[in-house]
Amino acid sequence: VRVGIGDDAAVLAPGSGDLVLTTDALVEGVHFSRATASPREVGYKAIVVNVSDVAAMAASPRWALCALTLTDAVDAAWVMELLGGMREACDEYALWLVGGNLARGSEVAVTVAVTGEVAPGRAVTRSGAAVGERICVTDALGAAAAGLRLVSAPARSVDASGRAAISRLSRPVARVGEAGILARHGVTAMMDLSDGLASDLTRLCEASGVGARLELDRVPVAPGATPSEALSGGEDYELLATLPAASVEGAASALQREFGVALTEIGEITRGPGVVATTLGGRERPLPSDGWDHFRSTIAR
Amino acid sequence: VRVGIGDDAAVLAPGSGDLVLTTDALVEGVHFSRATASPREVGYKAIVVNVSDVAAMAASPRWALCALTLTDAVDAAWVMELLGGMREACDEYALWLVGGNLARGSEVAVTVAVTGEVAPGRAVTRSGAAVGERICVTDALGAAAAGLRLVSAPARSVDASGRAAISRLSRPVARVGEAGILARHGVTAMMDLSDGLASDLTRLCEASGVGARLELDRVPVAPGATPSEALSGGEDYELLATLPAASVEGAASALQREFGVALTEIGEITRGPGVVATTLGGRERPLPSDGWDHFRSTIAR
Repeated sequence: VRVGIGDDAAVLAPGSGDLVLTTDALVEGVHFSRATASPREVGYKAIVVNVSDVAAMAASPRWALCALTLTDAVDAAWVMELLGGMREACDEYALWLVGGNLARGSEVAVTVAVTGEVAPGRAVTRSGAAVGERICVTDALGAAAAGLRLVSAPARSVDASGRAAISRLSRPVARVGEAGILARHGVTAMMDLSDGLASDLTRLCEASGVGARLELDRVPVAPGATPSEALSGGEDYELLATLPAASVEGAASALQREFGVALTEIGEITRGPGVVATTLGGRERPLPSDGWDHFRSTIAR
Repeated sequence: VRVGIGDDAAVLAPGSGDLVLTTDALVEGVHFSRATASPREVGYKAIVVNVSDVAAMAASPRWALCALTLTDAVDAAWVMELLGGMREACDEYALWLVGGNLARGSEVAVTVAVTGEVAPGRAVTRSGAAVGERICVTDALGAAAAGLRLVSAPARSVDASGRAAISRLSRPVARVGEAGILARHGVTAMMDLSDGLASDLTRLCEASGVGARLELDRVPVAPGATPSEALSGGEDYELLATLPAASVEGAASALQREFGVALTEIGEITRGPGVVATTLGGRERPLPSDGWDHFRSTIAR
């Protein structure tokens, strides 16, 4: 970083790789509520959701910009905590907060842009999946949706798995190192699960011009989450990846060894059209991209 | 651009220069009103204000990201026009809109991040001004403030200079090529005038650890603007630059020849402390960073 915060713009000396650019916003009342989320959590998450997009390209996050919109309802202490959360996430994922912008509005919004680097031509897109390849996800799904359900519900006793789910919602994990391992093990397409497996797998298949067979019973469900939350809950930020069948075992071992994170095969890329889901019973149904509930209503018919 | 809009992130193959990163937001009700600004103007301006920050580092804009917050009050046609304005500005300044994000909120906000490139170590900051150097500005000041006054006033007849002022407010100009010429003519510090000459000159001096003597009568006032608007009006996006005395004439000639834009010497960098302003009468007064009106009240005392 040659010039950081305080000038017209930040100036950086990059490496020799390709650049990866992404932006994502957290808007009050839509992505968070000041009643349930601390400013530290909001700041932390605003960085991580962008880091996750960079990770999903198999790139390394380097620099962050933050455009803040503040209201009269937040005081200086709230903003300092927000910045503290951003700094915490930047430290954890080894990126620099190099610049920002401050505006006044009628709702708080935290818009972050992150720039990452990747070796030339080595970014992993959504469009490289080929017929016969295996569909895998990291860790387990549905935790953030379960956390949101628990946070939104009126006071109830919350067990350990529920607390873990809430923590996953407020302090998500970006799979930066894990994505790097998958890239070294021949991943052909990758994205992060921000909108839910059902809709995101559909997107990956559309981008790759293929279909998919999803084995519902193999989808790893996070502790405290329901199968429905695992299939359609958003904001898990786990990686959805396709690999040649022969590469899955090696990738899974490496991921377990280096990060203690599971890689689970949940289906196969097909010629299509569309994404179909199968259950243990072997029945096959089209998977609507808006997920489980519609799927169940299809089953019920 | 290896990967554009539609994947987790954009992927770009940069040149060998330093990177310049900036972000700036236009928020409804603060930076624009949907009643007086067309969506095309909002989109165009959202890009240009960021390009101007990159230009002020003597860098070339390359790639833009846009995070949009939309409300139910805007329809698809409004959004298409907004994107049209962004694309128009991107075409004009030769940069690529490579990615974005869409969120729903209670007010429209357009947050843009622009990445530029500059030869290694050649970015021009605010902090390089030295005692004895001359303070210069491009073109003339106060047009945007005059435009805002005319737009805000109840229906009146507006003459040609008024129309030009309004147009400067809604379609600002980023001085990209001009900044490049100044850089080749030995500019030592530079910034774009977004908050007004009085406050921005104070900032440049603080960053450089110097003071300044501003000759009020030499400040170029845009047609239709008042001297007060030229001194404290924001959003002109003209360049404020310091140069060695011997370089001013050459830089001004080149700017006139290549862009038909004037470069006017308006003062000198001093040891300080602070920025003082002098009038033709030769009286010297401290220049409050919030500008002309406070200055006048100081004079009156």
